Amino acid sequence: MLDERSITVLRLGQRYVRDDRTLTHLCLVSRALGAEAIYLEDVEKDIPATVKEVNDAWGGKFEVVTGKPARKVIAEAKTDGRKVVHLTMYGLPLQDEVRELREAKKILVVVGGPKVPGYVYHSADYNVAVTSQPHSEIAALAILLHEVQSGEELKRNFGKSKLRIIPSARGKRVVES
Amino acid sequence: MLDERSITVLRLGQRYVRDDRTLTHLCLVSRALGAEAIYLEDVEKDIPATVKEVNDAWGGKFEVVTGKPARKVIAEAKTDGRKVVHLTMYGLPLQDEVRELREAKKILVVVGGPKVPGYVYHSADYNVAVTSQPHSEIAALAILLHEVQSGEELKRNFGKSKLRIIPSARGKRVVES
Repeated sequence: MLDERSITVLRLGQRYVRDDRTLTHLCLVSRALGAEAIYLEDVEKDIPATVKEVNDAWGGKFEVVTGKPARKVIAEAKTDGRKVVHLTMYGLPLQDEVRELREAKKILVVVGGPKVPGYVYHSADYNVAVTSQPHSEIAALAILLHEVQSGEELKRNFGKSKLRIIPSARGKRVVES
Repeated sequence: MLDERSITVLRLGQRYVRDDRTLTHLCLVSRALGAEAIYLEDVEKDIPATVKEVNDAWGGKFEVVTGKPARKVIAEAKTDGRKVVHLTMYGLPLQDEVRELREAKKILVVVGGPKVPGYVYHSADYNVAVTSQPHSEIAALAILLHEVQSGEELKRNFGKSKLRIIPSARGKRVVES
């Protein structure tokens, strides 16, 4: 089921807020929870390298694409038949929209930043809220990815990897392969 | 159903990593997704004030408790009959443990930091992983809170508030009361 669905993520610009840590969280959450790629409007030097290290150690082919303008990412997604889902606290409740979203084979999730331009609300197929309370774009993205994939993403296999965790009731077990 | 369950969160020490933004996200996610309080081991000056402003504007009585040692928070939780759930990528898969967690009326969620002391793994009733991949404690907390409450937390009413969002398919609608 997972393999039939393609999810990509777009993080809107960061130009005025230096916040590499939030950006790193967004990349790693996208990767861990089943997205294929994240588009970052602004180039952040260290982030593609950090994500590559995580792929090398823990598996998978998650991609970080930098430097493509958000408008272009959204336009290309639409041409490609992706449903564009904009996460915003002003949107319609996720729990009311999720059934439709689960039917989409291809999705672009747009994660806002401090100032979201008006065109994003209008070009999105869905403006969706994970509660109408202020909290965290990282948390909102996680719950959206989790709900759209009905929790199946938690069982995802990352294929060949250098490191692998053996889940334990207590303590840490990591094997090298 | 929500009101029968009590969830609190403990963020383990931050002493060596200055990362107020992650801490703010953890507080606001805990609040938005139905926890009552978060315990922060280290005092971060601005955070209780930030959260108070959010409560004042958006409702609810979420509490930030600072300065109590983690060991004490965990010991008191256990005395109080709370199940202690430690989030760690080394733990057992959430999807395998969630049925039991949903039965607990009172929970303390422990969110690790860079170096989690061994006693945490041993004093926790559950060591639970949201995937065995590295990602984000903010995302892991969000998905745990969401799953434990079966998504009911998304419908939570925050009572009297200065500001309230009217969910919209496009654009932003905020009302003042």
